Amino acid sequence: MSVLPEIRFAGCSRYDSMPKLLLHSSHPSLFRCVREGCQKMAHKSRLQGFGILVLSVLLGPTMIAAQQPALSLIPAPANVQAGSGSLRVDSSFTVALAGHSEPRLDRAAERFLRQLALQTALPLSPKPAKNSKATLMIQTEQAGKEIQEVGEDESYVLEVSATGAKLTAPTPMGTMHGLQTFLQLVNVSPDGFAAAAVTIHDQPRFPWRGLMIDSARHFIPLEVIKRNLDGMEAVKMNVFHWHLSENQGFRVESRKFPKLHELGSDGLYYTQDAIRDVVAYARDRGIRVVPEFDMPGHSTAWFVGHPELASGKGPYQIERRWGIFDPAMDPTNEKVYKLLDDLIGEMAKIFPDHFFHIGGDEVNGKEWDANPKIQAYMKDHGIKNNDALQAYFSGRVQKLVVKHGKIVVGWDEVLVPGVPKDIVIQSWRGQASLAQAAKQGFRGILSNGYYLDLGWPAARHYAIDPMSGDAANLAPEEKQRILGGESCMWAEYVNPENVDSRIWPRNAAIAERFWSPQETRDPASMYARLDFISARLEWLGLTHKSYYRKMLNRIAGPASPEEFAALRTLTDLLEPVKDYTREQTAPAEPTSATPMNRVVDAVPLESDAGRHFGELVDQFLGARHPGGPVDQFAPAACHDARSEAQLRMQFTLWRDNDAQLQPLAQRSLLVKEVAARSQDLSAVGAAGLAALDAIAKGQPASDSWKSQQLAVIEQAKKPKAQLLLIPAPAVQRLVEAAAAGSACFAAKL
Amino acid sequence: MSVLPEIRFAGCSRYDSMPKLLLHSSHPSLFRCVREGCQKMAHKSRLQGFGILVLSVLLGPTMIAAQQPALSLIPAPANVQAGSGSLRVDSSFTVALAGHSEPRLDRAAERFLRQLALQTALPLSPKPAKNSKATLMIQTEQAGKEIQEVGEDESYVLEVSATGAKLTAPTPMGTMHGLQTFLQLVNVSPDGFAAAAVTIHDQPRFPWRGLMIDSARHFIPLEVIKRNLDGMEAVKMNVFHWHLSENQGFRVESRKFPKLHELGSDGLYYTQDAIRDVVAYARDRGIRVVPEFDMPGHSTAWFVGHPELASGKGPYQIERRWGIFDPAMDPTNEKVYKLLDDLIGEMAKIFPDHFFHIGGDEVNGKEWDANPKIQAYMKDHGIKNNDALQAYFSGRVQKLVVKHGKIVVGWDEVLVPGVPKDIVIQSWRGQASLAQAAKQGFRGILSNGYYLDLGWPAARHYAIDPMSGDAANLAPEEKQRILGGESCMWAEYVNPENVDSRIWPRNAAIAERFWSPQETRDPASMYARLDFISARLEWLGLTHKSYYRKMLNRIAGPASPEEFAALRTLTDLLEPVKDYTREQTAPAEPTSATPMNRVVDAVPLESDAGRHFGELVDQFLGARHPGGPVDQFAPAACHDARSEAQLRMQFTLWRDNDAQLQPLAQRSLLVKEVAARSQDLSAVGAAGLAALDAIAKGQPASDSWKSQQLAVIEQAKKPKAQLLLIPAPAVQRLVEAAAAGSACFAAKL
Repeated sequence: MSVLPEIRFAGCSRYDSMPKLLLHSSHPSLFRCVREGCQKMAHKSRLQGFGILVLSVLLGPTMIAAQQPALSLIPAPANVQAGSGSLRVDSSFTVALAGHSEPRLDRAAERFLRQLALQTALPLSPKPAKNSKATLMIQTEQAGKEIQEVGEDESYVLEVSATGAKLTAPTPMGTMHGLQTFLQLVNVSPDGFAAAAVTIHDQPRFPWRGLMIDSARHFIPLEVIKRNLDGMEAVKMNVFHWHLSENQGFRVESRKFPKLHELGSDGLYYTQDAIRDVVAYARDRGIRVVPEFDMPGHSTAWFVGHPELASGKGPYQIERRWGIFDPAMDPTNEKVYKLLDDLIGEMAKIFPDHFFHIGGDEVNGKEWDANPKIQAYMKDHGIKNNDALQAYFSGRVQKLVVKHGKIVVGWDEVLVPGVPKDIVIQSWRGQASLAQAAKQGFRGILSNGYYLDLGWPAARHYAIDPMSGDAANLAPEEKQRILGGESCMWAEYVNPENVDSRIWPRNAAIAERFWSPQETRDPASMYARLDFISARLEWLGLTHKSYYRKMLNRIAGPASPEEFAALRTLTDLLEPVKDYTREQTAPAEPTSATPMNRVVDAVPLESDAGRHFGELVDQFLGARHPGGPVDQFAPAACHDARSEAQLRMQFTLWRDNDAQLQPLAQRSLLVKEVAARSQDLSAVGAAGLAALDAIAKGQPASDSWKSQQLAVIEQAKKPKAQLLLIPAPAVQRLVEAAAAGSACFAAKL
Repeated sequence: MSVLPEIRFAGCSRYDSMPKLLLHSSHPSLFRCVREGCQKMAHKSRLQGFGILVLSVLLGPTMIAAQQPALSLIPAPANVQAGSGSLRVDSSFTVALAGHSEPRLDRAAERFLRQLALQTALPLSPKPAKNSKATLMIQTEQAGKEIQEVGEDESYVLEVSATGAKLTAPTPMGTMHGLQTFLQLVNVSPDGFAAAAVTIHDQPRFPWRGLMIDSARHFIPLEVIKRNLDGMEAVKMNVFHWHLSENQGFRVESRKFPKLHELGSDGLYYTQDAIRDVVAYARDRGIRVVPEFDMPGHSTAWFVGHPELASGKGPYQIERRWGIFDPAMDPTNEKVYKLLDDLIGEMAKIFPDHFFHIGGDEVNGKEWDANPKIQAYMKDHGIKNNDALQAYFSGRVQKLVVKHGKIVVGWDEVLVPGVPKDIVIQSWRGQASLAQAAKQGFRGILSNGYYLDLGWPAARHYAIDPMSGDAANLAPEEKQRILGGESCMWAEYVNPENVDSRIWPRNAAIAERFWSPQETRDPASMYARLDFISARLEWLGLTHKSYYRKMLNRIAGPASPEEFAALRTLTDLLEPVKDYTREQTAPAEPTSATPMNRVVDAVPLESDAGRHFGELVDQFLGARHPGGPVDQFAPAACHDARSEAQLRMQFTLWRDNDAQLQPLAQRSLLVKEVAARSQDLSAVGAAGLAALDAIAKGQPASDSWKSQQLAVIEQAKKPKAQLLLIPAPAVQRLVEAAAAGSACFAAKL
């Protein structure tokens, strides 16, 4: 782990003038084509020939240190060719714009200079230069669309040499993407700050690369939204899907129907001015804003002010619990469509994007079943069941959306027979559902597999590809209908304090899935780059790292440095329970008023320390040689002495940690909640030491020893306080290795 | 170090109804009076009887954990009496205002609720309650002055019981101070969040408790100023002294003389609207804003737009270097007074405070000497020397300030014969100078000893008392002239990124010096409370802790977790060189354009890890028993086994750290700069291990061994890369102990 894995890409290009340097790879599995045999694999016609790549895993940084700094780019560009040396970045650095000109480009260049100054602490000129002798010359060919469109050209070419840099792009979006790549190229080098000399030809794999934030279950303030837009720009995402209405809140000011936000939001809503501000901020960053108004279900908050829209009798109150609830709009009531016509018309004006999301998910139909008027209507109109009733509703709403000049996006459920082909399906159900839609002629985006709230490790999201599963077998024209995907930040358990940490850094791995070539999929490389990019994202104002110590301080209260360190040693190795088990394991029914101040709210959803520990165990067990594939598992003849020493140190620390933490647990209720986890960690530490000792003996440990240790680990693997103790399975591997016997003494012993 | 030292105060009171509970002390030296014998010691007549106190060092938190949470208050209140139990703080918590009413109090209550919600993550009602059944009842007796005055009553009484809390104060300032105390009382407890039951009678020792920020040498943006005002409020400081003009910049918009800021600030200045905003923000927090326009020296930036004011020929440019420079205003030029009259008039309107700081420091007189016109004028008017010329200038400017309704504040130099008695002297020279001024009838504030930029440890600032030295011998009426003090953040080496870390947390120790009774001076107690308050200050938006990892990320560039940890192990033990040696040791002449991205810019000015290490060594050597005085040094019969084990672990880590760091030093110029420090740390680690081994032998180590180890430490004690390796002196103590011999084996061996 002392050397950052590094990837560079060299590849085929449509640019004849591009030097076709191929770098030799130490990792043949990443080769997909060679220079002479490139084939067009682009699945969308607008991506002209960038599709296939030669990927090339490169030299470690120590081998090229003298030459140029290491590359840590996320998302990995389609095509990178290493140049020679590097471009020095010092206070004389300037940037100049040429070609197409618009204020948005000036602002992009100024933002770029601010960010570059921030990441280097160099005193840079805050404005682009007026002359043609700038360090970085930018050439933008033409304007983008007035309203950013799906599939606009986002490509760029970035050429960096030891003497200067040039960025060329057909549109401002490409320019902005290229500027972000340049920022990631700049690092401290042996000679100061420098950008590696490279030639990058880059373009996205998918045209729809989104992040959905649910601002409805918990309100997310404007500045939090904005810093997440900054994060999206940094990783080249281009759609902010804003989930704005829910059972728990209607979050947009409606001037036509003020009771919607006045009675449906506890005063926590976005004014129309604030929304215009966000939309402009997003456009400046090449990001579309797609609003979602979820209907006919997930809509209790609407009914607080407008009970006449509902299918039940009311009165309604803002929902405080989580889950799927009965209230739903009445599809048989013409007043509903009248209000939606006006409201969609009003919202269409403040959200200029061509797409408009109407939700459509998870209607349980109970209010429909219980309403005799609705039942009578269904009978009269030959509407056979609730699915058909929802289809009727969707059809009516879809026409309203079209009337106001927009295209409908909806969750899987909106795809019912008879729905017009131009709607876009967002699939929470999965690739099969998405592929089915594509076969039927619908465009779609994948969100199944990208739910950030489920607490999956980045690698698990990263392994999911919109084009895999059933989608892989689609015909080319069907594949073109799969526009990309969106990560989703559902907000039952996030608030302004921890939401960044629930999105980042894992969202950067998903962003790479949507942007980079399908062949870019080595999790080790992803994690190495992610660790580094994660730290840099905080320069944008994101708080996904800095929030953690602050929350731990609240949990600890007044504590000695040793006590605080013991708390952190424990919490660094914990993750919240996964998927939807959080509700099931809650100590009391969680609501929107439940304080989020517990350890489960504080710890990151993916434990870096836990991941590194797992890698260390694998390394010790010989499962993974540097550069080798992850899944190769074979006991080594001799265990690695250095990793054994590190393991022993960690286990000793863990074993002794509980004694340090106990006094604090006596003083703080919030620490006391994890006291049992602390005991488990100590037990796991002791088991790990016992396993190392047993392995050192070189003979299989006894069955009784094994079952004793496994019982300890089994206990530690159980969720407690809604938290998982991440190292437990890796320690189990050690115990099993000790029981299986080992061929030799570890070198150090 | 596993138990937080804790102090509570019980004392005498003017309130007859107050229960007179006296708590027994384990620290007799802190007793100053007993219940029966309290005497009035108040040095200012407006402090009516709160002066003398019974201080009482209390039980450790483990001993009272079941009863109530620990107190960690900064500044320590004048008088604290422990109650029984604690007040639960949950989401039903409310606050209500009674008595005098003004919008500022409503805002204070709302701010209090926001901060309380932030520090507990409880969903609190954002507005004060309208009824009289609130958890915290606030009674404010009357309005404060329209323009906050020096010596207004800032006292408050806070009574917290298990069933409710009551805050009473004569003025809104007292109310605001009491609210901050309440916030510090709230901590997580064994039963959730709670405020300890206490009765606090509190008032400041000094009426002028200031922080000066130099926004001129480096511009400090508005939001950074504001978050520091939040920090000042938290520690009850009440004067923001804003150093606004310098050789390096004129930072205020002047509508009458726009060339001042337009040509004298590189575009980095505060608009008048921004200043009004800051003034209102400060007033809301009980803080006066005293502007400083430094003259006749320290004024090069004025002359860029107005060379006619200068004594030299010009032309002038904004100064980029640091130091004392020749340019000075021409005291013999009537145009100077005409402009100053108009400018002071303009500034007096946007800075409503009664005081106006005219600087007056460090005029080298060279331009005066070289200007024949000035020399002639002096001869004509009987002005004998430059001091007299400056006195003439000061006198003229003082009249202008008075004309615009203000009282002059100036640095020591303005005190010259004939100056009117109502000016206030800010002493950078020290207590003797201050006492001298007081004797002559001038009011004064102390800043000598409180220069935050000199990099002193908090304890050193903390030990300095405005009433010590010559001031201690003043007559009572002279003592009253010493209004308090100001910490000073001179800005040669600070920028928006690291300035918070140069001010905090050390400024909280200085704030305690100015607020708390003179007898409150145990550095161990101060540090224990400071460590905790420091973390809480970041909830206000201050970045003095979170900036550090970000700067280290920049310094490291792409690094493995192990490399980064090695960098941090080293930098955690480094401090910038002290006092004014930074200039002397700079690798190249530093200027305002020098990037602040080096390790010396990143590491905190006081190393927590270094301090804790020193304490550990003392503990091991038996120099300091828990609760014992710091300066008692005597080799123990047997060394403490636990502290030996901890020392051994640290030394091993240090010894091996350099090998981890070297690859990174090869890749990053900024890491390479500290490569020699890394080698020193490894050498010190090895020396420490050798010393522990020698001590374990129980016999005096040989002279040659000793001189060999001391040579290593001597090398390590030298500043390198403008950095001090903090543990070196403590390791030297170990080596000396080893050479002196030790009576027994450490228990563990």
